[in-house]
Amino acid sequence: MKKRKRSARLVDMTRQLLAQPQQVIPLSTFADRYQAAKSSISEDLAIIEEVFREEGYGFLQTVAGAAGGVRYIPHISLEEAEKSIHEICERLAQPERILPGGYLYMSDILGEPNILHQLGLMFASRFTREVDCVLTVATKGISLAFATASFLNVPVVIARRDSRVTEGSVVSINYISGSSKRIQTMSLARRNLPEGSKVLIIDDFMKAGGTVQGMKDLLHEFNAEVVGVGVFAESRVEERLVHDYVSLATLTEVDLHKRRIKVQPGNYFSSERHAALRD
Amino acid sequence: MKKRKRSARLVDMTRQLLAQPQQVIPLSTFADRYQAAKSSISEDLAIIEEVFREEGYGFLQTVAGAAGGVRYIPHISLEEAEKSIHEICERLAQPERILPGGYLYMSDILGEPNILHQLGLMFASRFTREVDCVLTVATKGISLAFATASFLNVPVVIARRDSRVTEGSVVSINYISGSSKRIQTMSLARRNLPEGSKVLIIDDFMKAGGTVQGMKDLLHEFNAEVVGVGVFAESRVEERLVHDYVSLATLTEVDLHKRRIKVQPGNYFSSERHAALRD
Repeated sequence: MKKRKRSARLVDMTRQLLAQPQQVIPLSTFADRYQAAKSSISEDLAIIEEVFREEGYGFLQTVAGAAGGVRYIPHISLEEAEKSIHEICERLAQPERILPGGYLYMSDILGEPNILHQLGLMFASRFTREVDCVLTVATKGISLAFATASFLNVPVVIARRDSRVTEGSVVSINYISGSSKRIQTMSLARRNLPEGSKVLIIDDFMKAGGTVQGMKDLLHEFNAEVVGVGVFAESRVEERLVHDYVSLATLTEVDLHKRRIKVQPGNYFSSERHAALRD
Repeated sequence: MKKRKRSARLVDMTRQLLAQPQQVIPLSTFADRYQAAKSSISEDLAIIEEVFREEGYGFLQTVAGAAGGVRYIPHISLEEAEKSIHEICERLAQPERILPGGYLYMSDILGEPNILHQLGLMFASRFTREVDCVLTVATKGISLAFATASFLNVPVVIARRDSRVTEGSVVSINYISGSSKRIQTMSLARRNLPEGSKVLIIDDFMKAGGTVQGMKDLLHEFNAEVVGVGVFAESRVEERLVHDYVSLATLTEVDLHKRRIKVQPGNYFSSERHAALRD
């Protein structure tokens, strides 16, 4: 890249940082790229850091030492997340969404890139422990898992709800789906997930949690560590198999006869609020 | 937002534009946001436009008139795309990827956000006609469809390979999968796709094209118009059902016995090259 003035550097650096979340970029990379002194680059970064912080786009983290540099950590503030989730909850509460079995039609919402980015950013802001990959099970959670993984800059691994996996040696487990109460199968090829990985589970919907429990059982077979469970929408049920999870929306009532749905923000917001107050 | 200096405005505008691809942002929105004159905003945009163009990040398009403003159109240059695809082809050619039936193990590559962004950007750069949504069929093409749709700023619609769709009235078609030569079923709920939509089909892999043809048949039932077909990898076959498609990689040889794979860039690159020479 040719020698750049500050104005052009700021545009390019902003783009570089946003396109490479979680990755440490050495200051020398920027200095070489723009033929600028490291001190100028540091001043540029201070300007970007201030805007990102004030506008709630996330953080620039300076990493010291030989492998040092600057890292962009995407983040959404609780306030912004609440604004988003309220709009989404309103859409979820449209009565024409009611499906048999207490389910909601959500494919349209979970097909919109803007919404998926917002939801993925919420999970990425919440699960800040070290994550090696995001696991989901086909089909409806895949886009959300990918959106989350993009902000965390880790790969997505997709389990299947059958054993017709053709990718070599496969691990299958049985699980009880909360909805059908039937024994179902979930599979993942050995080569999909390195042993001992730190895994974030993401799914679109949770009732009793049978599917999530299935994913946890599957991960156990890979000696993997579950660092978190995030679901877009949960439905209130009497008895839950999974207790440690983060939900973005909670369906408190789905009444097929009265055609009434009540949706409120999920436990993400109550627990985030508590964490914020604690700090 | 408080009154901002040019340096801070450039950072914030760059972020705003990148986060809202294809959307027209009125200059007055920026002018209000930064309490700046429209002439200053125009100068800012000229700086951003120059960097984006020179670095190959895409285009800023000025839209005149009452609904006017500026729109960011993501784009990858042929040169950058070729660099990416050569690296990806090298990875695809690793002999341990060979699966029975002439398939390749690609789940790891199609699980990496960085790669998916690059591939999605290639499709978004190529399919520049008006697109209402991206269609794929579960499971492996979903992340790629979502990556493409993100750059086009349109929703993703996911057909299923069975008829167990619980989302109300469903359209199912039968199709012949090229691999198994068996009759299979593909389904899409009526409410997933408005009648008469302009649809871009995206999938991960194509042999004879039976699955893509199935998606085309399905779209016909929705009176939808197919504006393009993009597949990540195609495998050379004797007889093809689908002729008008864009591939990013071509498997010219998959020899299970010799454990040899040959992969080259797909027809995206030959036809893009031709188009570039024509212009």
